[in-house]
Amino acid sequence: MSGEQFSEACAAVRPVSTEAAAAGAQHQDRLTKPRGALGRVEDIGVRLCAIAGTCPPPVPEPVVVAVFAGDHGVVAEGVTPWPQEVTAQMVANFCAGGAAINVLAGVAGAEVVVVDVGVATPIPVAGDRLLRRNVAPGTRNLAVEAAMTPEQAGAALDVGVEVASRAVAGGACMLVTGDMGIGNTTAAAALVAACTRRSAAEVTGRGTGIDDATLARKQAVVEGALARVGSDATPFEVLAELGGLEIAGLAGFIVGGASSGVPVVVDGVIAAAAALVAARCAPDVVGYLIAGHRSTEPGSALALEHLGLVPTLDLGMRLGEGTGAALAVPVIQAAARVLRDMATFDGAGVTDKGDPR
Amino acid sequence: MSGEQFSEACAAVRPVSTEAAAAGAQHQDRLTKPRGALGRVEDIGVRLCAIAGTCPPPVPEPVVVAVFAGDHGVVAEGVTPWPQEVTAQMVANFCAGGAAINVLAGVAGAEVVVVDVGVATPIPVAGDRLLRRNVAPGTRNLAVEAAMTPEQAGAALDVGVEVASRAVAGGACMLVTGDMGIGNTTAAAALVAACTRRSAAEVTGRGTGIDDATLARKQAVVEGALARVGSDATPFEVLAELGGLEIAGLAGFIVGGASSGVPVVVDGVIAAAAALVAARCAPDVVGYLIAGHRSTEPGSALALEHLGLVPTLDLGMRLGEGTGAALAVPVIQAAARVLRDMATFDGAGVTDKGDPR
Repeated sequence: MSGEQFSEACAAVRPVSTEAAAAGAQHQDRLTKPRGALGRVEDIGVRLCAIAGTCPPPVPEPVVVAVFAGDHGVVAEGVTPWPQEVTAQMVANFCAGGAAINVLAGVAGAEVVVVDVGVATPIPVAGDRLLRRNVAPGTRNLAVEAAMTPEQAGAALDVGVEVASRAVAGGACMLVTGDMGIGNTTAAAALVAACTRRSAAEVTGRGTGIDDATLARKQAVVEGALARVGSDATPFEVLAELGGLEIAGLAGFIVGGASSGVPVVVDGVIAAAAALVAARCAPDVVGYLIAGHRSTEPGSALALEHLGLVPTLDLGMRLGEGTGAALAVPVIQAAARVLRDMATFDGAGVTDKGDPR
Repeated sequence: MSGEQFSEACAAVRPVSTEAAAAGAQHQDRLTKPRGALGRVEDIGVRLCAIAGTCPPPVPEPVVVAVFAGDHGVVAEGVTPWPQEVTAQMVANFCAGGAAINVLAGVAGAEVVVVDVGVATPIPVAGDRLLRRNVAPGTRNLAVEAAMTPEQAGAALDVGVEVASRAVAGGACMLVTGDMGIGNTTAAAALVAACTRRSAAEVTGRGTGIDDATLARKQAVVEGALARVGSDATPFEVLAELGGLEIAGLAGFIVGGASSGVPVVVDGVIAAAAALVAARCAPDVVGYLIAGHRSTEPGSALALEHLGLVPTLDLGMRLGEGTGAALAVPVIQAAARVLRDMATFDGAGVTDKGDPR
């Protein structure tokens, strides 16, 4: 049944370990540095302890970046200057290794997997990197009707769970969320607004770069779609109504990663929207999330704040594909290595600080 | 003559290439991503073009982190709760590989070199990583007199130039600034204030973690020392008066890197203070600098702003040693790889965006 794997994965998510987190925090204070001097790196280390259930945590490698691709019927509203076929063209670019995510995953030593969960136009390549799991040739137009049927939403969620499970079974110790879909910042904005109770004006941004008139149109579309979502809607209903086949895939991927007990690095606003849905379906998921970066898209910061996540990087990026999250991978791995490899005051014969004179 | 190598290096710094920067910016816009979507990563890529004088720039590796260590007579004023012997103990820790910079340099694939330019207590180790270039056993107390004689300041500057030249001769294509010195945030605060015309209250921070009473004492020390520096003082006179043998070493290292034509990654407030001195001695140095991170120490942001540098990372770090700069290395290398390895719209058969509808 559509959505069954997702439901099972939600039920399988266990809370992260508060004991291991406490042990991690204590260990940080024994290392040869002033207490707290590594800032967010220490926080990430403690989170990795909580996820792994042990201190020091294993260094999270190898890493898999999964780029979920889908199209959006809402492009009929003129919310983006990019033609829809760019989604398929970029999938081909990912498969050929020429996109930004290929380069940045390479820097992070991460493998890239591309998942066609809902691309509308034929993808002119094959290749080992591409998983063909097309649920539908794009969503319907969320400006006028529900983006997905319940069956489509369930199937896309299941695809995400499957991709996470495959990656972890293949040895991945950390997952990175990626996305591609012309028009998808419109769907993401609507989801962020619905999940955080923010207005369309607060969450809607310029995506890949649009002018004022297009922004106003995009905001009106988000506002109209939100009006169809009742305040008692389940997260599944919200997801189906506002869409994104690739966003549903990502929500499944996030829950799949959490249910497998590995950290999941959240990229920009698309991934953050998926994380909001995932967290409403399975609240313990949040403990497994690490925010890779803050995108310039306003929904990114609002969603992360709602989830209680602090972004690792803030580089003014707004590309998606998993690029911001991939760039954060070395910092996250460094956080684990600090706990594993740094000397303690006792071990190194370094005098700890005395009381201030 | 003391300071001669530094003077020669200052004269050898050439302006970075505005032509290569323009070529880099143009190339960014041909790559398969929305224009500007990689944010700061694009800016760093353009800067690397300017430094290398070519687009794409070479990926800046291998990398050398040089940790300059020195002691400070101002610890007699009770500006820090850490005993002075910790400087030497930490140098031993660097040599043994147990400090945070060893771990974070490892993540960045960088080599660590440790330079004793002014440690006051005997260093209980030897080893290939340690360069013994002790100019004096710590500075004098900047609260009551000039921290360094002109000869000491010149000699420490020359040490820095030598270390940079050795590293580049050994193959390094990027240099990272590191520091160790109990009490050195006091000297750095004074230097930042003097070079940026800020007040002691604005630049003085809690360093490795001090209480309110100690902070007040530290601020008074900075204020008193600044009162001895005339408004017509040369950068060399400012440096000698306010000190830091390791800060002088870093200023020489920065100029040495720039004169060798390689990027220099600036760490926290100590390195930023050294960069201010370097930039006043040789203004074209600034084009070779990349700000690794913003430290929580207030002088860091003020100094970077004065230099027109935007920090790459902002992780709430305040450790020094080069740790924040080392963590930025993968981002900087990624910026070069983006320009070298990403496909163009034409090359990948991806449709560029049309005019907004």
